[in-house]
Amino acid sequence: MNHPLARPVFFLSDSTGITAETLGNTLLTQFPQERFDRDTIPFVTSQEQAIEAVARIDGLADIGPRPIVFSTAVNSEIRAILSRSGGLLIDFFGTHIGGLEATLNSPASGEPGQAHGLGNVARYQSRMAAVEYALEHDDGQSIRALEHAELILLAPSRCGKTPTTMYLALQHGLLAANFPLVEEDFERGMLPPLLLPHLSKCFGLTSDPVRLSQIRSERRRESKYASLRQCRYEVREAEEMYLAKKIPYVNSASMSVEEIAATILQRMHLHH
Amino acid sequence: MNHPLARPVFFLSDSTGITAETLGNTLLTQFPQERFDRDTIPFVTSQEQAIEAVARIDGLADIGPRPIVFSTAVNSEIRAILSRSGGLLIDFFGTHIGGLEATLNSPASGEPGQAHGLGNVARYQSRMAAVEYALEHDDGQSIRALEHAELILLAPSRCGKTPTTMYLALQHGLLAANFPLVEEDFERGMLPPLLLPHLSKCFGLTSDPVRLSQIRSERRRESKYASLRQCRYEVREAEEMYLAKKIPYVNSASMSVEEIAATILQRMHLHH
Repeated sequence: MNHPLARPVFFLSDSTGITAETLGNTLLTQFPQERFDRDTIPFVTSQEQAIEAVARIDGLADIGPRPIVFSTAVNSEIRAILSRSGGLLIDFFGTHIGGLEATLNSPASGEPGQAHGLGNVARYQSRMAAVEYALEHDDGQSIRALEHAELILLAPSRCGKTPTTMYLALQHGLLAANFPLVEEDFERGMLPPLLLPHLSKCFGLTSDPVRLSQIRSERRRESKYASLRQCRYEVREAEEMYLAKKIPYVNSASMSVEEIAATILQRMHLHH
Repeated sequence: MNHPLARPVFFLSDSTGITAETLGNTLLTQFPQERFDRDTIPFVTSQEQAIEAVARIDGLADIGPRPIVFSTAVNSEIRAILSRSGGLLIDFFGTHIGGLEATLNSPASGEPGQAHGLGNVARYQSRMAAVEYALEHDDGQSIRALEHAELILLAPSRCGKTPTTMYLALQHGLLAANFPLVEEDFERGMLPPLLLPHLSKCFGLTSDPVRLSQIRSERRRESKYASLRQCRYEVREAEEMYLAKKIPYVNSASMSVEEIAATILQRMHLHH
């Protein structure tokens, strides 16, 4: 089925295009044998911009395989313009709005809605505050206002504490702190005492010793810190501590940041 | 159209559920007069879990308004089970895969694909490195390896530098530094000299003085820092500096973090 030319794929949106990209790429992963040339066209909010986009799509449609256009655009005039392109339009909004109108027995407003921008000043500020909280409480740097944390993430070095904390702050506005489990904790065989009043907010990360050793080696090659033996020891000790205090935990070795974050929200019953 | 009971909405996914949530909520914003009770069911990867989810959906369907189920599940058995629920199934994957198969003239693999997990170890590590870079280079803390930055974000305090930098690191693995524009820069009327060799990587943020004053007031009420006069001054000076050095910039006052980030990627031609 391969075509000499990679097939053009456009992710088109009246906003950032991230949803069109994510869902579109999920669909495209179903065709691993195909070659795609991906491009995102965000912020298509006027008919002029839609006409411009169609010109780009049709320009490619004339010289190669039929382009695929994944769109999340809300505006009906813009969707009408896109539907006249020579590409295959996958209209994530238009395809599904009708069924909702029928089930809800009410017409769609047709307005882009308050999913972005000014409608989200409050969300923006809560995320900003959450990111600041995450920065202040990254890697055990501070215990100030620890009682305000909604989540305290624990893990040995390089299991993904920091990216996961930042993601939860940015994506969900969650007040999250994270603490490293270090040699002295393992020697004492217990969690840092300052965490004991907050066990109900704690969640642990662990990893696969081999993977952890690889990741640590990139930072400090040939070090005890990166040795497989040390990684085995830290993962085992950390898991024992989690179990001893009934702290839920997950092995992050094969998970993306989003998957780790979603797992934590689900297991900790944190609403977002 | 209002119903005494809020209508149950489920975002169901074999992964994190974020895409189902984002696209589903975009559709729901079209019905501002409706009341919805939202719940996410992530990581539905087995038929047993799908049957469990259907039981939850049908339990609610029996006692109130028909639930709406937004699904991004890939597996066809799972989608078949969901389609038998009493809810309105909006199947973002199943609805669109057929058109792709026809256009590509090849069958979908039926495998969840490599959008997540182990397939993304490289991406995971690059994001982890990007977050560390962003942390080290947040708010002008360090100029080490500044030459490796793919983006240098400039702005007066509280215009959104830090959340935007963290988002670009997490979402796109972009190596991004950010520098505050402070009083001494404004007095000198020029950018921090250490940035001059890197102007081509610089992008500026500005804001609406009234909005900026509100945000700053939450941090330091009644301060000169938060005064409308000071905010007007800093925004004007910052914009003059951007213009003088031909640094592209955007007013972030009414934008979400995602919108600021997508705007920067587009204007700076940074591929993600």
